[in-house]
Amino acid sequence: MTTVIDGKQVAASVIDAVKTATAALEKNTGVKTGLAVVIVGDDPASHTYVGAKGRMAKECGFNSIQHTLPAETTQAELAKLVATLNEDASIHGILVQLPLPKHLNAEAIIQSIRPDKDVDGLHVVNAGKLATGDLATGLISCTPAGAMLVVRRVHGEDLSGLNAVVIGRSNLFGKPMAQLLLHANATVTTAHSRTKDLATVARNADILVAAVGRPEMVKADWVKPGATVIDVGINRIAAPERGEGKSRLVGDVAFAEAGEVAAVITPVPGGVGPMTIAMLMANTSIAAHRAAGQTPPKF
Amino acid sequence: MTTVIDGKQVAASVIDAVKTATAALEKNTGVKTGLAVVIVGDDPASHTYVGAKGRMAKECGFNSIQHTLPAETTQAELAKLVATLNEDASIHGILVQLPLPKHLNAEAIIQSIRPDKDVDGLHVVNAGKLATGDLATGLISCTPAGAMLVVRRVHGEDLSGLNAVVIGRSNLFGKPMAQLLLHANATVTTAHSRTKDLATVARNADILVAAVGRPEMVKADWVKPGATVIDVGINRIAAPERGEGKSRLVGDVAFAEAGEVAAVITPVPGGVGPMTIAMLMANTSIAAHRAAGQTPPKF
Repeated sequence: MTTVIDGKQVAASVIDAVKTATAALEKNTGVKTGLAVVIVGDDPASHTYVGAKGRMAKECGFNSIQHTLPAETTQAELAKLVATLNEDASIHGILVQLPLPKHLNAEAIIQSIRPDKDVDGLHVVNAGKLATGDLATGLISCTPAGAMLVVRRVHGEDLSGLNAVVIGRSNLFGKPMAQLLLHANATVTTAHSRTKDLATVARNADILVAAVGRPEMVKADWVKPGATVIDVGINRIAAPERGEGKSRLVGDVAFAEAGEVAAVITPVPGGVGPMTIAMLMANTSIAAHRAAGQTPPKF
Repeated sequence: MTTVIDGKQVAASVIDAVKTATAALEKNTGVKTGLAVVIVGDDPASHTYVGAKGRMAKECGFNSIQHTLPAETTQAELAKLVATLNEDASIHGILVQLPLPKHLNAEAIIQSIRPDKDVDGLHVVNAGKLATGDLATGLISCTPAGAMLVVRRVHGEDLSGLNAVVIGRSNLFGKPMAQLLLHANATVTTAHSRTKDLATVARNADILVAAVGRPEMVKADWVKPGATVIDVGINRIAAPERGEGKSRLVGDVAFAEAGEVAAVITPVPGGVGPMTIAMLMANTSIAAHRAAGQTPPKF
């Protein structure tokens, strides 16, 4: 019997915890949690994401502020806004929606956010804290944090004796995910496009995490019987069976066949995906608690 | 036929390259490479290490400055010295010898060193740069940098298709070493004390790196035939065969038996050990070149 993780349900439980913590923080200290989201230009997808984040922030009880800048905003203007938000004590989290228009240097902007307000977990100081196991003062990138929360719901806090394999080595996901699994005492292998015989490496995993962006690459015979399979891929593929020009989303795992072998599996969509925005709210709540000198909630 | 790596020879080749680069930098830009070593208190071992570093720095043609502070130095006094060295344009590398006396907060001192002068590679920004693959602007901790240089001398720059296993997950060595191997395209497993069946995991390695501090733990049957074995352990054990009360140094690998199976192996002492101080000189030379706007040498 395979357990299919309902990511929406897990995400909702995180949001519930954020709501409770946010209300308690305000009641105990008078501090209202503040999240500033900055968006530059007119990219429709970015506006959709930012809108969803703003709505979720309000649902959590945050003071949610959106700064919408025109596409022709200069580097200096954007840097000045970030500097202002860095100094603003009512703002605990700053998120600059990516991608930025091409004439802007996104990396310089990200690195100018104060690490303790970097709720996307992209600052080099937060990468360094995660790499050195300092989870008590750093902020963790939202997608790996969300995938790790799912792993912990399945296996508990201590992964001693378990083999974890992460396929993919991006800075946004694969590397931080491997660090989180290692921190939880798993034996961790990072595999990638240069790995020889990926299937054999994957089949050694008690916890298999796929994040490569290749539709349904992980087949049933890549999966150790009884393994937990976490699918972080989101790929849009043609779905002519739904009509001409139609498409559908699939993960990096061939869900139907891999699900026959795995004990636990996350679907796409509806698995790890909904966790990312939930962990953004969690990070903002953590940042607000720290700024107020309070112990942050554990997620 | 097993190749035993002569770490002294490899280290000497690094030092030669540092000397050449240092002389060229001075000739081309007038910049004399400067290394400041700070030592607090009277620990004899620390004084021995610092003396060796100073002699090596002079041999490299550096301006080598040692600051020797009394054991009762306060945190504020030490912080003030570091701040002065941070501002001093003639100093390109700052090394605070550890351990510091117990009344001092070493971590705060290390994190107060400017990352671009942190030639020990201990600052969180340098950890973050390494974790995110930014080797072009960061400084890498000396022992993993030295072990990686040995790996590159054996296997070249591209480890695609090779399985690397690092036993040990310390911030000082295991984690950065795994990151370096991954950056070079190896498939990397980090194993440790919580790993189930370490021997089986190790036997999968084309490149096996041991850094756990357990004398001669890695036996012949942990080694894949033809593997490269890098031994980072330095353990002092009793050697009654040398006389009463005598001791000797051994690594984490049972050298004689593992050497029968490996194709390449580093001995202890005389393997990775001599690389650490050489990479400190390399880091200082890199930092001086960057400060002068010159392309640093590759080691």
